[in-house]
Amino acid sequence: MERHFQEELQTLQERLLEMGGLAEERVRSAVAGLAGSDIPRLTTVSGGDEPINELHIEIDRRAFQLLALHQPMAVDLRAIVAALKINTDLERVGDLAVNVAEAARRYLMHPPVKQLLDIPRMGDIAQAMLRDALDAFVKRDLDLAQHVLDEDDSLDALKSQIFRELLAYMVRDQATVEPALDLILISRHLERIGDHATNIAEDVIFMVSARDVRHHADSLPPQA
Amino acid sequence: MERHFQEELQTLQERLLEMGGLAEERVRSAVAGLAGSDIPRLTTVSGGDEPINELHIEIDRRAFQLLALHQPMAVDLRAIVAALKINTDLERVGDLAVNVAEAARRYLMHPPVKQLLDIPRMGDIAQAMLRDALDAFVKRDLDLAQHVLDEDDSLDALKSQIFRELLAYMVRDQATVEPALDLILISRHLERIGDHATNIAEDVIFMVSARDVRHHADSLPPQA
Repeated sequence: MERHFQEELQTLQERLLEMGGLAEERVRSAVAGLAGSDIPRLTTVSGGDEPINELHIEIDRRAFQLLALHQPMAVDLRAIVAALKINTDLERVGDLAVNVAEAARRYLMHPPVKQLLDIPRMGDIAQAMLRDALDAFVKRDLDLAQHVLDEDDSLDALKSQIFRELLAYMVRDQATVEPALDLILISRHLERIGDHATNIAEDVIFMVSARDVRHHADSLPPQA
Repeated sequence: MERHFQEELQTLQERLLEMGGLAEERVRSAVAGLAGSDIPRLTTVSGGDEPINELHIEIDRRAFQLLALHQPMAVDLRAIVAALKINTDLERVGDLAVNVAEAARRYLMHPPVKQLLDIPRMGDIAQAMLRDALDAFVKRDLDLAQHVLDEDDSLDALKSQIFRELLAYMVRDQATVEPALDLILISRHLERIGDHATNIAEDVIFMVSARDVRHHADSLPPQA
């Protein structure tokens, strides 16, 4: 039974990584499609969330079965609940990649706004945060999870800077209103992808250490 | 033991409702603060997410303890996992209320954009969805949960309509760019609050019927 449980838990984690890989690839494609004015690539992102949605349901079902059949305790229990939460975050990342791709398609219908500013860089940071958060989950690596939390500040700073720059364009030149608005939305979607990576990192810290670092609550006693 | 478990589960649900009430009240205050140009009220929303954050941590801890100490099965297990997920959604609703309040404060620093369009109506719908989703959770009411899912379409339609109207203002009159942009962001925050209510309704349907209606997956077999 115990060996069976560990194998099932292993499979659960593998599926989650598979889903993470798909989510990350979709974010990459959406930003590359924008940077390369590649409409077919963006269309592929918009229409292709079926595999992520199927994994979303499968992972939830596997986690439920593990909880129901094996009554896990302590770190195993926390790992399964973390998997349930990470699953939700990755599904949202997939949705946000669709949002980026759709805003990018609208953006490409207008003359471009001078340049994409730091949006490709935001995409790189968001992807790296996602990859690091999932690596931290697999390796149960607290330092890497903490690194993800730190990276979120740079993403927020870039978003605010991009907002200010685009607002200046919009106020100066009406022709830029529509495309600049799409870039603002894209930078917000990328920031939210970073937020989901942050959620995952917080779940990893809780899973490994039973410390709840959300809302700076790290003085609370350990649980379960 | 069983009686103790049911009492603890009851307390968990009460805390969740308390949190739902706080989240709903914050959404109401943020939209009312915008409609009434009430800066002090908006400031209260921006600065006041401590009680929700504390409940967020407490509810997670209670849910973990129930899972660890009682090894619940079937509907009880699904209720606890639903509570964990709903907890995450409500915490995000609290954050989104802050986002609405902050965008509203920026908005009120400019001459107003003619009118608030259907934004107060979006606020009403989002609040009603949240209230109905939590009612459905308490009463285990599938019809009410389904009603919440249906309402989400009207919220999306309002968001798209508001976006088109504001874009038209922005393109016509540069002075409206900044305030209109804030209204666009507010309508998106309200739409996301509706998305969280939808998530809660989906969790209720799964809890009650073991049917996963996300991604139209209702043909899958029941679980756990």
